[in-house]
Amino acid sequence: MAAADNDRILLSISHCLASYIAARLIRDLCGNVDARLKSVISATFHPHTWTIDEDELPCLACLAGPRVQSSRFEPIRERTMAQNIYDNADFFGGYSQLPRQTHGLAGAPEWPVVRGMIPDLSGKRAIDLGCGFGWVSRWMRENGAASVRGYDVSTNMIARARADTNDVAIDYVIADLETLELPEASCDFAFSSLTFHYVEDFARLSRTVHGALTAGSWFVFTIEHPIFMAATHPHWIEDEDGRKTWPVNRYAIEGERRTDWFAKGVVKHHRTMATTLNTLIEAGFSICWVAEFAPSAEQVREQPALAEELERPMILMIAAQR
Amino acid sequence: MAAADNDRILLSISHCLASYIAARLIRDLCGNVDARLKSVISATFHPHTWTIDEDELPCLACLAGPRVQSSRFEPIRERTMAQNIYDNADFFGGYSQLPRQTHGLAGAPEWPVVRGMIPDLSGKRAIDLGCGFGWVSRWMRENGAASVRGYDVSTNMIARARADTNDVAIDYVIADLETLELPEASCDFAFSSLTFHYVEDFARLSRTVHGALTAGSWFVFTIEHPIFMAATHPHWIEDEDGRKTWPVNRYAIEGERRTDWFAKGVVKHHRTMATTLNTLIEAGFSICWVAEFAPSAEQVREQPALAEELERPMILMIAAQR
Repeated sequence: MAAADNDRILLSISHCLASYIAARLIRDLCGNVDARLKSVISATFHPHTWTIDEDELPCLACLAGPRVQSSRFEPIRERTMAQNIYDNADFFGGYSQLPRQTHGLAGAPEWPVVRGMIPDLSGKRAIDLGCGFGWVSRWMRENGAASVRGYDVSTNMIARARADTNDVAIDYVIADLETLELPEASCDFAFSSLTFHYVEDFARLSRTVHGALTAGSWFVFTIEHPIFMAATHPHWIEDEDGRKTWPVNRYAIEGERRTDWFAKGVVKHHRTMATTLNTLIEAGFSICWVAEFAPSAEQVREQPALAEELERPMILMIAAQR
Repeated sequence: MAAADNDRILLSISHCLASYIAARLIRDLCGNVDARLKSVISATFHPHTWTIDEDELPCLACLAGPRVQSSRFEPIRERTMAQNIYDNADFFGGYSQLPRQTHGLAGAPEWPVVRGMIPDLSGKRAIDLGCGFGWVSRWMRENGAASVRGYDVSTNMIARARADTNDVAIDYVIADLETLELPEASCDFAFSSLTFHYVEDFARLSRTVHGALTAGSWFVFTIEHPIFMAATHPHWIEDEDGRKTWPVNRYAIEGERRTDWFAKGVVKHHRTMATTLNTLIEAGFSICWVAEFAPSAEQVREQPALAEELERPMILMIAAQR
């Protein structure tokens, strides 16, 4: 546990430093750190209680060397870490009450479909990207995995996952999927549930996962569906017959989407269906199966409120093979 | 030409017979041919001017043998041929004035993307499913294909394609994609533009195309996007900011969609994105590239009206490999 705590502290420091450098870089390149950006950066610092004093930012050139000073070099990609909304107290409080957190996998209506997309895990080393409370990490061990490593950016989540797990073959690591590095061919199955819409650089992450998997291994993940995410105002409306209808606009305009969900200004990254699939293909994966959550007739009988999920897909599920 | 005319007459007769049998089958199974169904069947007969007299339908059992009479057999799939709306005079008149028909490929804004998905055609035997006026059939020959065979259900389309083509290595055949059969390994590239949303049994068609292609060959097609097709009332609305917005509902409820487009009650078949991709995968294809039409900045500058295509995708484009 001491080693894990050290890891956590080191990661916290490196995250803070990354944010600090990012803020400085943006100020140097753009002349200022705008309020919106500052709130993103602040969110990544929470709950460390550090704050950014723009005037005290060190000279970036001193930190980064000549690369920044010369326009002959390719532009530097400005990147903050993924917004760590799960360490926002309001968000975490609300989120923890969701059926899928209080009831685990039984509270996730898409789970029967996802479970069907997961290959035989016997003897496999699995990773769980954005493991949250660790529900799937534990399920994978109960279903044959030799070991599981869960990654999450949120100290709240990792603390809860550790508290709820009593299995020496599962470990949990605080990590930002924007910058995650994984050893080559170190695992035999990669999983992620409803996390990648928080990740800006999905191409980098796909390449990382591809490199980490052994040949022939599977990568199964769920993500918020682009139909669900695209619009500026994503909420139910009615059509002329009074039927529940979901608005789509800005579909082709990829990038940040801000919504209020347990907290104001939750940042997600919209990508089209084509981009998500092509990114996997370009990373070297074969697309094996695609699903879009819709409730079964039995689920609608048991939970009539689920019927609305027939109107538009909220969750996209993909199984790919290295 | 005499042989082609004979083909056309034989196909017309077999289409009529298929519709006739379908109507009878449905009456036998369901007790009646409802008005909506009758209009579909009538549309398939147009412009042959035949009509269906329900009372004069022959006994299906006599035509189809014991399979229909016994419930021990699996249910028979009721299938009419694809609606042949292109032989409706009003529809054909309006359709013929579309930019993509008067200007050919230059009038199809998605063509630059589609063209980029088509592999080198040198020496290849290509097929064009739903060839319409033959624009792509001719383009494929101009770009190296050894031969092209275009298929279309519409006698109007095939007549126009033949009139516009002066190339002995292209031939056009009247055929219904619902029942099309192709010789095994008889072609090296399969293409289709904006046709498959008229096809009900996409799984059968995918298997047919897979069987017809030689190993390693590509299958590139465009289809109306399920986001565009899903809703009961698919038309622009506005969100609370006045932004153009597209309504989505009934996304998970696959099947027939009727819209008015140059003619009343044009029948299309909605399938989810997942179903389209998985159907190809199950037929044995690898998914190589997926695109969803959105205009480039240059296209929007030249044709500002295209900007609305950024709000929601109208066309899905897929490149798959056998």
